[in-house]
Amino acid sequence: MPVNTIAIEVLNVSFTENQLTIDWGDGRKSQLAAIWLRDHCQMPESRDPISGQRLLNITDIPNDIHIAHVEQNNDMLTIDFAPESHQSEFSLCWLLDNCYCLNRQADDRSETGKKLWLKSTFATQLPRCHYHRFCDSADSKRFALQSFKDFGFVILDDVPCHEGEVLNVIKQFGFVRETNYGPLFEVRTKVDANNLAFTNLGLGCHLDNPYRDPVPGIQLLHCLQSSTTGGESILQDGFMAASILRDENPQHFETLCQQWINYRFQDANTDLHSRVPMFEVNEKNEIIKVRYNNRSIGSLNIDPDQVTKFYAAYRHYAQIIERESLQVMFKLNPGELMMFDNTRIMHARRAYSKGGVRHLQGAYSDLDGLYSTLSTLKQH
Amino acid sequence: MPVNTIAIEVLNVSFTENQLTIDWGDGRKSQLAAIWLRDHCQMPESRDPISGQRLLNITDIPNDIHIAHVEQNNDMLTIDFAPESHQSEFSLCWLLDNCYCLNRQADDRSETGKKLWLKSTFATQLPRCHYHRFCDSADSKRFALQSFKDFGFVILDDVPCHEGEVLNVIKQFGFVRETNYGPLFEVRTKVDANNLAFTNLGLGCHLDNPYRDPVPGIQLLHCLQSSTTGGESILQDGFMAASILRDENPQHFETLCQQWINYRFQDANTDLHSRVPMFEVNEKNEIIKVRYNNRSIGSLNIDPDQVTKFYAAYRHYAQIIERESLQVMFKLNPGELMMFDNTRIMHARRAYSKGGVRHLQGAYSDLDGLYSTLSTLKQH
Repeated sequence: MPVNTIAIEVLNVSFTENQLTIDWGDGRKSQLAAIWLRDHCQMPESRDPISGQRLLNITDIPNDIHIAHVEQNNDMLTIDFAPESHQSEFSLCWLLDNCYCLNRQADDRSETGKKLWLKSTFATQLPRCHYHRFCDSADSKRFALQSFKDFGFVILDDVPCHEGEVLNVIKQFGFVRETNYGPLFEVRTKVDANNLAFTNLGLGCHLDNPYRDPVPGIQLLHCLQSSTTGGESILQDGFMAASILRDENPQHFETLCQQWINYRFQDANTDLHSRVPMFEVNEKNEIIKVRYNNRSIGSLNIDPDQVTKFYAAYRHYAQIIERESLQVMFKLNPGELMMFDNTRIMHARRAYSKGGVRHLQGAYSDLDGLYSTLSTLKQH
Repeated sequence: MPVNTIAIEVLNVSFTENQLTIDWGDGRKSQLAAIWLRDHCQMPESRDPISGQRLLNITDIPNDIHIAHVEQNNDMLTIDFAPESHQSEFSLCWLLDNCYCLNRQADDRSETGKKLWLKSTFATQLPRCHYHRFCDSADSKRFALQSFKDFGFVILDDVPCHEGEVLNVIKQFGFVRETNYGPLFEVRTKVDANNLAFTNLGLGCHLDNPYRDPVPGIQLLHCLQSSTTGGESILQDGFMAASILRDENPQHFETLCQQWINYRFQDANTDLHSRVPMFEVNEKNEIIKVRYNNRSIGSLNIDPDQVTKFYAAYRHYAQIIERESLQVMFKLNPGELMMFDNTRIMHARRAYSKGGVRHLQGAYSDLDGLYSTLSTLKQH
């Protein structure tokens, strides 16, 4: 977060009943509504000093709240509100840092806060970090988690090839999301597998578990053994693919934002359904989440007049996803662990031979825990 | 799910290149696009017979796919596709059950699949279930989980007053969502609490953790001890409150759907942010999720010309939430556990005395696991 500096000698404070105006003297101006100021009062009767949580409810504030008086004393403003006779003190620094006229509306899930990538972005190397550094050095962990946030993935090297180690990796930044597959799941060829992931078939680019709501935000895959031929991993940026679709055909992009579809997974003990769009966007139409998994789209139940339109958009996106220029391919070797944002980064696997052994352990986690850890590391 | 019956003797099948038409002979008609039929092929080369997952990608299907021939044989249709020479067999029952012209677009999160309630809905009793029946009887568990789905909450009685039992309750239907508060959290008065929940203050109606994305879908609160004066629990239906807002002022409802805001929670080891709307709706503008917590709205960073509009809508919703006609109030006694949909049901607590002991243990889970368990119980 950039540090805002203020020059008290040049700024100018004025007010009307409904609004406080601060001319910062450098071309910037804040105009803050009386209701917003009262609602953001930082005094101990309005905010709990320990937790920082609001103690007042919006309905505790009179509907006709207004500013009665403002007084500046160095870097502090004292505001008297009426008709309740309440006094709030704000530091000018706080007002500058929190002013809704001047600060970005931060949305850490949106495409605008990420570095969208193509295969060529990683011509020299992929984002990687040694696991022991990840565990022992705050700087290394911050670097790795920032790579994850920017690019949506990072590879950890030299993760001990112990069964269950993937769960220890998660404890380094967040919490395990257990599912019907267990706290972790084994990826190796199974007889009568309940999911194609557990066969030796190739799998096209996809995101995991779109039939789950909420979808797990992070997937980790830890390679314990790999002596098969084939089985290479492919990653690609679903946000980049969606942004290319938007460039090539805005109507197709719109369709995948607006058409909700059913995903489903079913076995003897599980029956998961969701109804969600392929692309989620925020209020500024920025991409914040993609869901794409051809294997687990349920029976498509959409309005009859939308069927042709939906398939055209879906096909177009699938074609973009298959472009080699979007895909990085590498073989995950024993001791390597890839972790990726399962709301953004698609993964695929090439088919592998029946001879030899390929054994990965996978697990899920959530983005909020990782982002919290990264944010805390940045503050220290 | 209603069982569809078909009368083979009266139905009529016809086709064009682009569409299959089935007149079911009872006034119902299905018109199914060639691309949809090919994409939903149930043959073993298109669908894995064990997992039911699709083996083909949309890009494997020619863009000019069309129907070359259809043949009916009792309750089976054989469809020949061109230009790929592919043959699919569908049972007429399957087509009727999955036809997008005739079946509801199921969204189990939407208000339309719920029973929205007021205080008067529970004039005689709240939805309750004895815990030992919940564990031992599939019918009782189905009843309790269906109450949860319909009303958004259920109370379990006679849950053993053992520390940690709340985690065993979750194992009965799903999985624990661990957070920075731990796998479970203690609700009792703490010195220097990092969250107002852990004080003896009253708490207004709210949903938990809107600063977390994804938000935990289920909260459980298990009462172990209660000898204080006060501390009554209040529940109320946030979907009902939102639907009342929509009736009273559609523009206010729209504002809370469209205006995204920041929520935040911060302590020494945690820094959680989200940017989300108060109301989420699906593509039909049906409510699917509410987020409301006055304590943890971050610095409101919205477009300056939206501030007044937002506060008017927010205040209106807060006023509806405070209406007694929407609130059920009861005292949670030792051995009672309430579980509620944290995307819908607001909870509140009245302040309690410093004398006496009040000790609850709480934990979070997710809706998908519970809905899956309910769906599986209904099938058996």
